[in-house]
Amino acid sequence: MTVTIVGLGLIGGSFARDLREGTSITRLIGVESSDRNARIALEMGIVDEILPLGDAVPSADVVVLAIPVDAIYKLLPEVLDLVRDNQTVIDMGSTKLLLTECVRNHPARSRYVAAHPMAGTECSGPQASRKGLFRGKTVLLCELELSAPDACRTALELFHLAGLKFEFMDAAQHDRHAAYVSHVSHVVAYALSLAVQNEEKAGYAVPRLAGGGFASTVRLAMSSPEMWVPIFTQNRENILQAVCQLSATLNEFKTALEAGDDLKMAEMIHRANRIREML
Amino acid sequence: MTVTIVGLGLIGGSFARDLREGTSITRLIGVESSDRNARIALEMGIVDEILPLGDAVPSADVVVLAIPVDAIYKLLPEVLDLVRDNQTVIDMGSTKLLLTECVRNHPARSRYVAAHPMAGTECSGPQASRKGLFRGKTVLLCELELSAPDACRTALELFHLAGLKFEFMDAAQHDRHAAYVSHVSHVVAYALSLAVQNEEKAGYAVPRLAGGGFASTVRLAMSSPEMWVPIFTQNRENILQAVCQLSATLNEFKTALEAGDDLKMAEMIHRANRIREML
Repeated sequence: MTVTIVGLGLIGGSFARDLREGTSITRLIGVESSDRNARIALEMGIVDEILPLGDAVPSADVVVLAIPVDAIYKLLPEVLDLVRDNQTVIDMGSTKLLLTECVRNHPARSRYVAAHPMAGTECSGPQASRKGLFRGKTVLLCELELSAPDACRTALELFHLAGLKFEFMDAAQHDRHAAYVSHVSHVVAYALSLAVQNEEKAGYAVPRLAGGGFASTVRLAMSSPEMWVPIFTQNRENILQAVCQLSATLNEFKTALEAGDDLKMAEMIHRANRIREML
Repeated sequence: MTVTIVGLGLIGGSFARDLREGTSITRLIGVESSDRNARIALEMGIVDEILPLGDAVPSADVVVLAIPVDAIYKLLPEVLDLVRDNQTVIDMGSTKLLLTECVRNHPARSRYVAAHPMAGTECSGPQASRKGLFRGKTVLLCELELSAPDACRTALELFHLAGLKFEFMDAAQHDRHAAYVSHVSHVVAYALSLAVQNEEKAGYAVPRLAGGGFASTVRLAMSSPEMWVPIFTQNRENILQAVCQLSATLNEFKTALEAGDDLKMAEMIHRANRIREML
């Protein structure tokens, strides 16, 4: 099986490295808009060759789109224009509603499998890729009823190779879920980073003197705008709702702290602690 | 040297285990209000014996207070009442202004070293302790000019054994710093946990399907109210200010997202990314 990976960054590069382990994968082709990343990916042996998209799509059994969601929105219909009935197209974007809607009536819709592997780090580029990034993590699959059975089987086989577990959701439900368990964590991390930097200028907060708690919260604040602005834009309504809810909760806590209401704070923290049983 | 550790939880237990490595430490005494934790700490070999505070203080060269900050506030003057001129008392609390103020005029003030090791996890109890928890982390030391030179030397020797680096701050500066790089991360994690649990009830957010980003942000939301409510209370003004600043930044971001102002979002994220160079 020949697999073309479009975008050899953290996600695409890591996925390619996992696919190397599969005996059924005989050839890995990369498509990469950055010449530098293309060169690094070849040097690292992440893919066997780099081709332009127009050559890489017809040469592959499976095409994986691992690029920012605005680029997926643009490329997905073009790629579906090119594919034959025995090819499978998978996207790995963090949003699903707009992407599935933009190809809902495409003649080749059934060749497309909409996926979101819930894994990543704050780093980007092929040098940030690593084997096993997806192991034990979950891939959320949307609207599988609109994908051809053989396309589903192929996608699941590749995800299984990467060690991913499967969950199924409709696209709207996915986007709301992702807003709460992924997107808003990034918004909060960015806001915390900016608040701390503001204090740093005033000579108070010195991030390098922070403990592990701060580092793990603010880690996501290193994620790139190229990837995240399009996610925020495509999932605007859900993220706005989540940020509002978070602000309201922060406000409730602030009111309790101002009032010296220790019981209320303890009650909120007790409830917050329950996240332990849910993870 | 005999060291008494008051509180054999995550911090006290881990510190005791590090001190075991030091050839100068000949005996470790524990003081623990929970019988269960006392038994576990003995079984784990964290300390050599458990004694009541009134016996443990006179028996030790150094007394380390590793208990919640409200308990430190209560015990610190009592312990200083008991110490002789060749003993050292160290506290490891997350706040410093109120604790240093409450003993500023104590006749034995010079025997006390105010410290805050910037390390921890979301877990508690002796079973959560681990050797090396402090290695490479920073301990913030406050008002060292009010501590006797030999007490400072003794404290630094123990912190060095645990692998801690030293930084010096005045107590007010410490509390403002800690609000931004530690305390408010916890407030945010609690709020995020509550928002996600609210969505979970509605059938949307399923925390166990989250990726590593959410897990690392929300990890702190597992921290106990017994430890954190007293910290929030003792550092109220700074935390309120930090939460206000964070809320304002969240609001600024929300306004940009509502307006579809991608450039503004990208600019904020670019600035937030700079935290990488500061860690």
